[in-house]
Amino acid sequence: MRYRRIPDEAVWRLPIYLRGLLFSLEKSQETVSSQELADFLGVHPWQIRKDLSYFGVFGTPGVGYKVKKLSRQIKKILKLNINHKAVLVGTGNLGTAILTHPGFKVYGFEITAVFDNDPKKIGQKIENINIKDVAKLSLIKRQKVDLGIITVPRQSAQEVADNLVRSGIKGILNFSPCHINVPKKVKVITIDIAMDLARLPYYMPTS
Amino acid sequence: MRYRRIPDEAVWRLPIYLRGLLFSLEKSQETVSSQELADFLGVHPWQIRKDLSYFGVFGTPGVGYKVKKLSRQIKKILKLNINHKAVLVGTGNLGTAILTHPGFKVYGFEITAVFDNDPKKIGQKIENINIKDVAKLSLIKRQKVDLGIITVPRQSAQEVADNLVRSGIKGILNFSPCHINVPKKVKVITIDIAMDLARLPYYMPTS
Repeated sequence: MRYRRIPDEAVWRLPIYLRGLLFSLEKSQETVSSQELADFLGVHPWQIRKDLSYFGVFGTPGVGYKVKKLSRQIKKILKLNINHKAVLVGTGNLGTAILTHPGFKVYGFEITAVFDNDPKKIGQKIENINIKDVAKLSLIKRQKVDLGIITVPRQSAQEVADNLVRSGIKGILNFSPCHINVPKKVKVITIDIAMDLARLPYYMPTS
Repeated sequence: MRYRRIPDEAVWRLPIYLRGLLFSLEKSQETVSSQELADFLGVHPWQIRKDLSYFGVFGTPGVGYKVKKLSRQIKKILKLNINHKAVLVGTGNLGTAILTHPGFKVYGFEITAVFDNDPKKIGQKIENINIKDVAKLSLIKRQKVDLGIITVPRQSAQEVADNLVRSGIKGILNFSPCHINVPKKVKVITIDIAMDLARLPYYMPTS
């Protein structure tokens, strides 16, 4: 069976639904309607039903979705049912903020190594992880690390990305406000905080 | 004239196009084709043409878009043609990283005030901005601040959001990994770094 083309936007929204479901799980809720989930997340219920239908997932009319089952299904679709190891490069304020972020474990992520090029930082610890010399990034080849997080200044981002790719990384979360070039098989998501802020005024009433 | 309904995804992508255009401007490029822009940004050229068409913006066949004109048009659509003042609440690692982010001025944002509840931080300076007591947040009512950035721990996020709304803020960029409730007239964009990472494995080849 061939899947029909699934819009990136549907994939993009699945983790949002998962977050809502994990919240319902915390409250030991067994079922959730698309309306409840929508109200909680601030989206349209038809959007949730439509997005899930792309993956062959449907709720029961009048009952909704089984919380445990649906969260397991979404995790499987997003390949979050297997644990992923990630490394982080750049331990400035942003890198440190990410390392202390409580949410990674929820999705099955483990940050196994941290790198920097600052001799004063190398050898120190953040969140019980040793900061290693970025020159030794290729060491991660031997471990089964598939994700890289880039939090270095813009001018070093491409070089770090090249090294991550050479070390076998398959996905990069890039926080440097620049475009990085990688081979097609590697997926990059760039987060530009200023750009996220730039999305707000459109929705705001003009005074 | 009534606009037809514009998909949120198109609005979401406009700042990405703007980033590409600003890069072309830096290189003093006068025109850019949707193909060039697409190559640089890693999107499909038809997507760019389609998204821009929602706003009545079309390129010239064989020439493309005029860089200056299109960036001005996108800025106007996104209401970035007027300057926006923002305040930031929470000066931990993430808040500090955001304050030192070089990209805000590019989009016409100015962070005019910073707040925290830590007595040791109040009175200190980050990036030449005084850290003020969060209890005095309502002071921003008198200034023309319309955006708020929340970088406080999850358990304080809702309270800070309520205070921002009471102080007249119309848009919130929320970095706390939780849902916050605000009146309908206020737009919230929540950035959950762990959730962004959760979007990567889907695209990665299973080994």
